[in-house]
Amino acid sequence: MVDCRLRTGLELLAHTWDPLVIVALRGEPLRRRAVRDALGGVSDKVLTEALHRLLANGLVSRRSFAEAPPRVEYALTPLGRSLLDGPLLALGRWLDGHADEILAAQERAEAG
Amino acid sequence: MVDCRLRTGLELLAHTWDPLVIVALRGEPLRRRAVRDALGGVSDKVLTEALHRLLANGLVSRRSFAEAPPRVEYALTPLGRSLLDGPLLALGRWLDGHADEILAAQERAEAG
Repeated sequence: MVDCRLRTGLELLAHTWDPLVIVALRGEPLRRRAVRDALGGVSDKVLTEALHRLLANGLVSRRSFAEAPPRVEYALTPLGRSLLDGPLLALGRWLDGHADEILAAQERAEAG
Repeated sequence: MVDCRLRTGLELLAHTWDPLVIVALRGEPLRRRAVRDALGGVSDKVLTEALHRLLANGLVSRRSFAEAPPRVEYALTPLGRSLLDGPLLALGRWLDGHADEILAAQERAEAG
């Protein structure tokens, strides 16, 4: 049987926007609007759901500042940063060497 | 803007069964039934879709033997094996150290 624990990890990556939010938060904490601008083309609803899952999985933290108007910032937790520095970096490196092969295979499959 | 290429890689992992099929094929080539048994609990329809995507993405190959009854085997391509040995192994190692943290965060979130 395939290791059930791997499913837990794959579920963190199954919603494609979630890891992309993690990448967007690699630097300083960001307000929601800045996250949205960094992602480009994500709807408010989808971003809300992604942030909700990331908070629930302990990958992102939310800090609210008592200002007027209120300011809320999102940042990676140490857990979120370790996912970025480990598996997501490994995926990015793998794509550096293999993205062309994937695209070629997809084109062959579409050509039938 | 977040690197668009990362999306290509994330899409390979977005269907959770696809990487689990890759793990199931880490050893010798397998017939469809053996893949299904290794996964446990996947429906025929979902397995058909997963194998179709894996073939289209160049991660798995299909070999058909002219026997009676016909025998078909699935195996990792070099591209599929490199995804297993790189990003998926990195994800597995990350989970070795962090699965408990994720589960604890999920429990806190559910407790509200």
